[in-house]
Amino acid sequence: MKSSLEGTSLIGSERPDARGRSFQAVNPSTGDRLPVRFFTAGEAEIDRAVKLAGDAFEGMRALTGRDRGALLRAIAGGLEERIDDLVERGTAETALPDGRIRMETARTCAQLRMFAGLVEEGSWVDARIDHGDTERKPAPKPDLRALRVPLGPVAVFGAGNFPIAFSVAGGDTASALAAGCPVVVKAHPNHPGTAEIAGLAVREAVAQNGFPPGTFSLLFDEGINVGKALVTHPGIRAVGFTGSRQGGSALMAIARERPEPIPVYAEMSSVNPVFLLPGAVQGGGSGSADTLAASITLGAGQFCTCPGLLFALQGPDTDAFAAALRERLAAVPPAPMLARAIADQYRSAVNRRKARRGVEPLFLPEHWAEGCAHPCILRTDAATFISEPSLMEEIFGPAALLVVARDRGELLVAAENLEGQLTATVHGTEADLEDFGELAAILERKAGRLLFNQVPTGVEVCPAMVHGGPYPATGDGRSTSVGTAAIDRFTRRLAYQNWPDALLPDELKESNPLGITRLVDGAWK
Amino acid sequence: MKSSLEGTSLIGSERPDARGRSFQAVNPSTGDRLPVRFFTAGEAEIDRAVKLAGDAFEGMRALTGRDRGALLRAIAGGLEERIDDLVERGTAETALPDGRIRMETARTCAQLRMFAGLVEEGSWVDARIDHGDTERKPAPKPDLRALRVPLGPVAVFGAGNFPIAFSVAGGDTASALAAGCPVVVKAHPNHPGTAEIAGLAVREAVAQNGFPPGTFSLLFDEGINVGKALVTHPGIRAVGFTGSRQGGSALMAIARERPEPIPVYAEMSSVNPVFLLPGAVQGGGSGSADTLAASITLGAGQFCTCPGLLFALQGPDTDAFAAALRERLAAVPPAPMLARAIADQYRSAVNRRKARRGVEPLFLPEHWAEGCAHPCILRTDAATFISEPSLMEEIFGPAALLVVARDRGELLVAAENLEGQLTATVHGTEADLEDFGELAAILERKAGRLLFNQVPTGVEVCPAMVHGGPYPATGDGRSTSVGTAAIDRFTRRLAYQNWPDALLPDELKESNPLGITRLVDGAWK
Repeated sequence: MKSSLEGTSLIGSERPDARGRSFQAVNPSTGDRLPVRFFTAGEAEIDRAVKLAGDAFEGMRALTGRDRGALLRAIAGGLEERIDDLVERGTAETALPDGRIRMETARTCAQLRMFAGLVEEGSWVDARIDHGDTERKPAPKPDLRALRVPLGPVAVFGAGNFPIAFSVAGGDTASALAAGCPVVVKAHPNHPGTAEIAGLAVREAVAQNGFPPGTFSLLFDEGINVGKALVTHPGIRAVGFTGSRQGGSALMAIARERPEPIPVYAEMSSVNPVFLLPGAVQGGGSGSADTLAASITLGAGQFCTCPGLLFALQGPDTDAFAAALRERLAAVPPAPMLARAIADQYRSAVNRRKARRGVEPLFLPEHWAEGCAHPCILRTDAATFISEPSLMEEIFGPAALLVVARDRGELLVAAENLEGQLTATVHGTEADLEDFGELAAILERKAGRLLFNQVPTGVEVCPAMVHGGPYPATGDGRSTSVGTAAIDRFTRRLAYQNWPDALLPDELKESNPLGITRLVDGAWK
Repeated sequence: MKSSLEGTSLIGSERPDARGRSFQAVNPSTGDRLPVRFFTAGEAEIDRAVKLAGDAFEGMRALTGRDRGALLRAIAGGLEERIDDLVERGTAETALPDGRIRMETARTCAQLRMFAGLVEEGSWVDARIDHGDTERKPAPKPDLRALRVPLGPVAVFGAGNFPIAFSVAGGDTASALAAGCPVVVKAHPNHPGTAEIAGLAVREAVAQNGFPPGTFSLLFDEGINVGKALVTHPGIRAVGFTGSRQGGSALMAIARERPEPIPVYAEMSSVNPVFLLPGAVQGGGSGSADTLAASITLGAGQFCTCPGLLFALQGPDTDAFAAALRERLAAVPPAPMLARAIADQYRSAVNRRKARRGVEPLFLPEHWAEGCAHPCILRTDAATFISEPSLMEEIFGPAALLVVARDRGELLVAAENLEGQLTATVHGTEADLEDFGELAAILERKAGRLLFNQVPTGVEVCPAMVHGGPYPATGDGRSTSVGTAAIDRFTRRLAYQNWPDALLPDELKESNPLGITRLVDGAWK
């Protein structure tokens, strides 16, 4: 490691003394404690971070989209400079392979630069201008201009399963900073060292780009106190979270107790159903078996878009597909999970599901390797699935449940029975998809992203991505946490009426000094 | 009246039997009960309305933006056909003058046609297309396309103070229908006859334009049971409300008990502060006194944008302004309020405020006319205002409190002390506004709309309007309930990945058959 870790929170440009409660990260591959003690942020430190964020929010008003773009690019550069440290510490803390951390860092940097481009260009504010008309009868028409403005300090929770892309400098932080919101990150306790490395990159970029120190803080805590204090703090104006349904629901419940409600963007859980229509399993469907086995086991099944439920119609083709998928999954070696406790939960969840009446194991490991995820596939019939809600629950890891329906009607009932999902996928021929139009209509109501003949893992970072879906996939199903539209989450609209041109934000000035696309008198210009 | 009222709820195309609990509307000018008994919707009727709305939501999937535009235009036409009935019953139920009901109906029809134009044109869905690239390394880029889709059935609460524009066929209903969401309206109990007339216009338009009957239902209730049942009903996907802070907070609390959270757009309360900078009161500020007196007393002060707090710096100019405003307000005759109970509440609230230590009446009526609102103006100093939170509460009616600050610093503290507001207004010279840049920076964080040298009443219906603001002005401060952006409230984003072109929504097809503006590979086209 080039950088030495200190283990204390980053409170703007300050670091508190190393004292009080502390914890250490554990290498999930070995079970050993990793060096450096991380010190839990206390109440005064949390308060200080939010206070500095409030000050920074006022200070950031004077900074432009170009300034914010420069900040985001500098953060990306800082992460790239620290890539060796991120890989060394990240692999040790998460058991994710070297290549994954590198790819995740590349994705994170591309995401930071995407938001930089967005705010440097500037049209994202959805500027709208309606010119006044003093002659209008019966009443003169006022001059009105509106744009999106930042909400204020945002609390971001690092995700356990994405130590880089959904953590300290991940999508929530990038989109919040892009919008003009200071960020207070609570590091995920499983990878605090990775968090500190990334946090130092952000802090350095903040300092070097003339942003107020409180633009970014990073707090450590092994437990829930820091998170609770952040979500209830009156100075926090929005929350970004990626994690379990249990964790997200707890945060949402805490937030509901605030006297002043704030948006909580909790991306929580999804079983990402895949519907195998006749064409997909014809002759055993080896194509779908290949891609689905790869998707189920990618990253040891620790993706929020991991396909956990497969639906098909009964018949010999589906049986052949099941055999093919079983064979593919059995060939994938066990892989260490993000934490020993997660592997234990995975094994327990698979065993509980296996024990359900009407559920038959197709492939389960004979012996479980400590801390590892073995691919698993179980099978049930649609009637059992429809009558047993627990079969809809996400199992975090590379386990899938194949649900076989007697007929089209039962398949549709099973689909209608699904909770809100991040994704829903259909495999088959185009003729199948057209033929099953009712299925597509149901899935449109259930999911944020629909896929055809592809797999839900691999969330492209682009303007058209929607990574969010109806509850409980996301706490606020109107939002996406990936792609350029993620910036909208941390904004509200603000209108100016009859405001002097010279004192308007540049985005709304008559001369359009930023050259952005605007809705002027009802037409995009 | 051309149409005869029946007093039973409109459940899609059905009307239940006239039985069970009932209530009558009261003419606030006379205190007399108005003809026709209105029957409270029972549990089965509420369920039926939501069930039909769910069916309609599926049915509306086959209908296009042009179809929805035709529906909205037909509703506007239906209201205009019924204008005499609306005026006759509306004036009797609300004591609002004839001209006001006509103007409000015209505004409502213009609003319906604005949303019709928006959805007929179609670009509002924010269509985004990112073309795939199978050659991209290290992984192929998928084809992704996204648009805004409707959330599902919406519950709308008629507002007491806008019997047409924020009620049955008002802004919430218009924007929800425009988005493709069926609507279940709970009529405001103070003007149920007006609601029935408007409801029949909507129902007729639904039937004549080939929309499923459950696209629109209208439920009556004098109490809170219907509202509570709607907000907790699993079939309802969003709520639109305009009314008191007490009412909106109660709805939000009820909604929080749902297992599945939904957005509640409650536009609740606002005191709409006005800051009179030195140029505005120079020589007594007769211009500001004129426009503010008119704004305070417009519609008997029963607008959510009624300016209830005026701030100025101490000195002889402000004293002269106070005298001028006092004179203008004293010249405005008392006007009947929307209900006798509302007039009683107004009088009590003014008297309570008058009794506060440090508050001095500038003008109060000597005798209160039954059911009427008399303009009132009180004065206090900023120190008292800052220390007494009750002085920030909205008084529903034509009462204003002039808050006089010793100096600029105290004025800024008072501004910083404000809760979230729909609007904040500054009067003065441009040089004043520039000089008080810190004030503008504070107000940008506090309000949804900032005005200069105009008055907040008169909410223009146009793309750049923001009628919404930080809590408690609005339950969800990210939203606007007026203007084209109001449609976004009832939508979420949905992405299609690798979906066959022929089966995509028209908005996303490669050939762009609707000819809408889209974000294609990062550029607006």
